[in-house]
Amino acid sequence: MRFGINFFPTVGPAEKPADRYFAECLRLAEVADELGLDHVKTVEHYFHPYGGYSPDPVTFLAAAAARTASVRLVTGAAIPAFTHPLKLAGKLAMLDNISRGRLQAGFGRAFLPDEFDAFGVPMDESRERFQEGVEACRRLWTEEDVRFEGRHYAFGPLTLLPRPYQRPHPAILVAAAFSPESCAAAGRAGHGLMVVPSILDRERLQGLLAVYREGWAASGGAPGAEHVHVSYECYLDEHDSSAAYAAGRAYADNYRAKLAEAVTAWGRTRSDQYQGYERLVEGVKRIDYDASLREDKLLVGTPEEIAERLRRIREHFGEVTVSLHVNSGTTTVERAERTLRVLADRVLPEFTRPREQSPAAAR
Amino acid sequence: MRFGINFFPTVGPAEKPADRYFAECLRLAEVADELGLDHVKTVEHYFHPYGGYSPDPVTFLAAAAARTASVRLVTGAAIPAFTHPLKLAGKLAMLDNISRGRLQAGFGRAFLPDEFDAFGVPMDESRERFQEGVEACRRLWTEEDVRFEGRHYAFGPLTLLPRPYQRPHPAILVAAAFSPESCAAAGRAGHGLMVVPSILDRERLQGLLAVYREGWAASGGAPGAEHVHVSYECYLDEHDSSAAYAAGRAYADNYRAKLAEAVTAWGRTRSDQYQGYERLVEGVKRIDYDASLREDKLLVGTPEEIAERLRRIREHFGEVTVSLHVNSGTTTVERAERTLRVLADRVLPEFTRPREQSPAAAR
Ligand SMILES: [Ca+2]
Ligand SMILES: [Ca+2]
Ligand SMILES: [Ca+2]
Ligand SMILES: [Ca+2]
Ligand SMILES: [Ca+2]
Ligand SMILES: [Ca+2]
Repeated sequence: MRFGINFFPTVGPAEKPADRYFAECLRLAEVADELGLDHVKTVEHYFHPYGGYSPDPVTFLAAAAARTASVRLVTGAAIPAFTHPLKLAGKLAMLDNISRGRLQAGFGRAFLPDEFDAFGVPMDESRERFQEGVEACRRLWTEEDVRFEGRHYAFGPLTLLPRPYQRPHPAILVAAAFSPESCAAAGRAGHGLMVVPSILDRERLQGLLAVYREGWAASGGAPGAEHVHVSYECYLDEHDSSAAYAAGRAYADNYRAKLAEAVTAWGRTRSDQYQGYERLVEGVKRIDYDASLREDKLLVGTPEEIAERLRRIREHFGEVTVSLHVNSGTTTVERAERTLRVLADRVLPEFTRPREQSPAAAR
Repeated sequence: MRFGINFFPTVGPAEKPADRYFAECLRLAEVADELGLDHVKTVEHYFHPYGGYSPDPVTFLAAAAARTASVRLVTGAAIPAFTHPLKLAGKLAMLDNISRGRLQAGFGRAFLPDEFDAFGVPMDESRERFQEGVEACRRLWTEEDVRFEGRHYAFGPLTLLPRPYQRPHPAILVAAAFSPESCAAAGRAGHGLMVVPSILDRERLQGLLAVYREGWAASGGAPGAEHVHVSYECYLDEHDSSAAYAAGRAYADNYRAKLAEAVTAWGRTRSDQYQGYERLVEGVKRIDYDASLREDKLLVGTPEEIAERLRRIREHFGEVTVSLHVNSGTTTVERAERTLRVLADRVLPEFTRPREQSPAAAR
């Protein structure tokens, strides 16, 4: 298994000014680098305290790249629907060069109606725009004199500058929520997969990973070289299980409150390409902290308890890459740093193997 | 006067890999910060070795922000026509927070037909898209619940996150090439101005600055608080005037060759909004090194000679901010660093006043 940090701001200006939030994240990125963690990752969201401090993940990751030497930089996820692929491929290639090959490019479809509405992009075009955007980036990175004739983008012949540092191209990861078809397609394409266990039953997530790994193997990928990112909120107390339990609840409650506010528009939105999302409004309300803990959807506890959770996660999901959400903005950076140091010292060695090649390079 | 660095890559993969180019620029940004220089600036261009290593200036500037403490970060220029204003305002606000208020947001219309063609943006919409984009950013930075109803963009009501660090907003600079109307409008709006002396007769540039300063004063700006950025290629030899002259020619020739290749499409392009640009193809060919030197369009020479040039520049253009292009990618980073250190030691003290407030704050 591999471990990194997921920076997902769940604060607004009333709770923490953005300059402080970013200063804390850069400090934690340095700690991650020092501890030999696998990656730092951040999100693309807008307008709401649910991720909205990060409308452009590349901007933060470029700053993190300049402060670190070996940790990987992951967009988790960049949204092709909101940026022209010439721009997106270009700035990701800049980040790959600035970081000397440490980029892993995660792409997502987005799912918040307010974001699509603001950009004037129909949600019913989400899947096509996503596929076109990812394909355009891949071709711009690997080919010269690219002529692209899509439904939403058409350009060329032209050659992207700068060329990416990693050849044939930076690893591509695809964010998937519920769709087995998306997971199978990601595997067949040789992409990595990013999933969120907190919103899925364990059996359903196991099903998604199984079809992803089948797709990977069917296209000739080496078994075990596939790349699955899973994100967990993490709240650790070194000695006191009850204290971790109480503080973890506050942490999870804040995340859920911010998510609930961001998905409000699903109460008045329907899209063929997001079937069932109208149930998110109710679904988020029903999330139960105790049940989430029982099902290992949260990494809350003492080091020993978190180790037990990780053993079960490995048993259920295999050798995945874990992104730890230790810094929502609502707790102190000192606590987040202490969490990382204690984990690195007492928990992670049991689970980590030497750093592996990226999926693109391994194929 | 104030002095900073203009990073304008004029190299392609055959000349210098992009990872090396960016590593050198980050090193020079650190030197600029250490020497107390005013700013580092970079460009937005695509596909050609004329600037094409920098398709997203914010990405590089975010990395530079993470390596520096006091130097300002200037987009010179970001192109609203190629990025949705929600995205552009958002990532500039992230950079302003990451740098704790060191952003100066320069915007430009772009002028290369290949870039407009690739993005599918008609050049005849250039002026409107520029004005809408800048206005959208300004409103997103200063207002909440923004409802924007433009010809090219419509959104809202929504509130941008993160809020910018600087209040009321980061300084806005506008790139102008030839148009007195654009310069007057920039002054009236209280924006800074970015001009390129190498492509203009001195008298014509003086005319542009005069109408800019008139506009500035007419809208109540304090005299002397206006903000004019001028860019110069700079090649210094500590002791040997002839050596500087010869190496400066190679430096200028490379820039001109890359520019000539990038403007080729003007041979087959016409636009009402770029009148006279069809003459660029011939105009670039006619640029004469010796005449450029005589007219102080290049900062080439010994420290004493460069000081003499700067005295004349100050006499002609007033208390401008000078962006030094010391690192095209074709010379060594060691030479570029030495140039900065010698200038800071022996030339700039005569010309620099204590750092002033930004134009926005000064109004
Ligand atoms: Ca075309
Ligand atoms: Ca949280
Ligand atoms: Ca529909
Ligand atoms: Ca709307
Ligand atoms: Ca040059
Ligand atoms: Ca026309």
